[in-house]
Amino acid sequence: MVFRDKVVAAFKEVQDSICAGLEQADGKARFEEELWNREGGGGGRTRILQHGNVIEKGGVNFSAVHGKLPEAVKKAFKVENDDFFATGVSIVMHPSNPFVPIIHMNIRYFEMDDQTRWFGGGIDLTPHYVIDTDARYFHHLLKKTCDTYDASFYPKFKQRADDYFYIEHRAETRGVGGIFYDRLKPDQTGLDFDQLLDFSVAVGDTFLPAYTELIDRNRDAEFSAEEQEWQYLRRSRYAEFNLVYDAGTKFGLETNGRIESILMSLPPTAKWHYNHQTVPGSPEAETLSKLKKGIEWV
Amino acid sequence: MVFRDKVVAAFKEVQDSICAGLEQADGKARFEEELWNREGGGGGRTRILQHGNVIEKGGVNFSAVHGKLPEAVKKAFKVENDDFFATGVSIVMHPSNPFVPIIHMNIRYFEMDDQTRWFGGGIDLTPHYVIDTDARYFHHLLKKTCDTYDASFYPKFKQRADDYFYIEHRAETRGVGGIFYDRLKPDQTGLDFDQLLDFSVAVGDTFLPAYTELIDRNRDAEFSAEEQEWQYLRRSRYAEFNLVYDAGTKFGLETNGRIESILMSLPPTAKWHYNHQTVPGSPEAETLSKLKKGIEWV
Repeated sequence: MVFRDKVVAAFKEVQDSICAGLEQADGKARFEEELWNREGGGGGRTRILQHGNVIEKGGVNFSAVHGKLPEAVKKAFKVENDDFFATGVSIVMHPSNPFVPIIHMNIRYFEMDDQTRWFGGGIDLTPHYVIDTDARYFHHLLKKTCDTYDASFYPKFKQRADDYFYIEHRAETRGVGGIFYDRLKPDQTGLDFDQLLDFSVAVGDTFLPAYTELIDRNRDAEFSAEEQEWQYLRRSRYAEFNLVYDAGTKFGLETNGRIESILMSLPPTAKWHYNHQTVPGSPEAETLSKLKKGIEWV
Repeated sequence: MVFRDKVVAAFKEVQDSICAGLEQADGKARFEEELWNREGGGGGRTRILQHGNVIEKGGVNFSAVHGKLPEAVKKAFKVENDDFFATGVSIVMHPSNPFVPIIHMNIRYFEMDDQTRWFGGGIDLTPHYVIDTDARYFHHLLKKTCDTYDASFYPKFKQRADDYFYIEHRAETRGVGGIFYDRLKPDQTGLDFDQLLDFSVAVGDTFLPAYTELIDRNRDAEFSAEEQEWQYLRRSRYAEFNLVYDAGTKFGLETNGRIESILMSLPPTAKWHYNHQTVPGSPEAETLSKLKKGIEWV
């Protein structure tokens, strides 16, 4: 079996098991699947869940595309060759209860030739209200997954998540971070490509235990209209990050990707208040104080 | 009087008269003013109107800033010198009734030295529902203002608005356009700087008659929950344009501008539905069919 086919099969399985687990956790909504083909080559399975008991809107997308790299991307990647293959699973969940966090996961594999191929990915959490025990639990699970492969992974990838998921113009992180890695190759890691695939799948398999536990803890929490309003404000920050900074979104928009799959990450409802100020000492102010880089959750 | 001071005085007057006119048209809400200073030099008067009879959220901002240009902007502008002065009035109005359009206006003056200075600006309309008679009225007024100065202005600036207010990844215009001009200087126009200032003020003075008429025509139109939902979807397109493409927003975010003034353009509430499809023949489908370049409204 060609390596890329092995990756595709493994990633599809990750998508399938996560969709099954999320439907079970939600208890009401079912994923709707849309199969699509890309003009330049390849395609994907977009799966969207809406109006659930827990999930207001979310997507678990698989894609495997190939073709010629656009000139701009070739330059950015500093590669000569322009045949590429890329496959990945991408998830964003927007829950209806403000005490259940937004979550994002992505695992991806990119290949141009034997020299130019790598894995990338990560999971990160964006609570509307930061709950310390939840953030610690989440980071603990990620560290456990990372440590199985390399003790240096968690601290390195945790820092990269802090740096990456940062809303520069607000001087705040998108949430409490998680892990983020890119261009992971054998030469830097001592792991061969099969082991790196295993690691990526392990990251994928960390999604369900991490998120279903956070759902269980908070799904029945009562909330006020004010707390929901705060959720909508936090969601607008999420939209700002994804539209202004997110590399995956930019890449998708610039390479003429499938818009509805790329922008499924955007929140069902978002609000922008002019110059919103939190009340000192309030849970909202407390949350803001924790949206910064370098907090050690483990 | 130094020329830039004349521009500042004229622009402040435009801001004042527009604020007075909008308060009168709204009949309920009052502008709240925030004066701010920029660390590098200068400052502004941000004026926000919220929860009105007609306007749900809107801003009429004046600023006059000066200082040293950031390296990246210097490169983009291809200038050696790095002392700059910039002043402008920026407006975005998000009305609560989906049949009243969103409107945007901006007039600005930029100066580095005697050789490097210019005016820019424009007005454009983003109806949630395109009403042909309104779009025609709007463009007619803009053409009249332009024609007083130069018969070539309207067709040129109308085309630039079509090209500029374009959501590439959706392959749709932001709205029905209007006029957009930039780097307007005597050498291209045969008008001296005083006349170009007059033209900019005339554009500013076109805002009130244009918008108050569209408010009057539609403010009492009844609307359903579905029509309001459509408004929220159109507003999310507006947010996409401003966060992904708008040059003023980008410039503001990159030069460390006052975030709340820059992002006052974002809608109070916006919604993203996954893969929303309009019903063929519906008013929503009709609107989409008119969000394209090159429609002659006059």
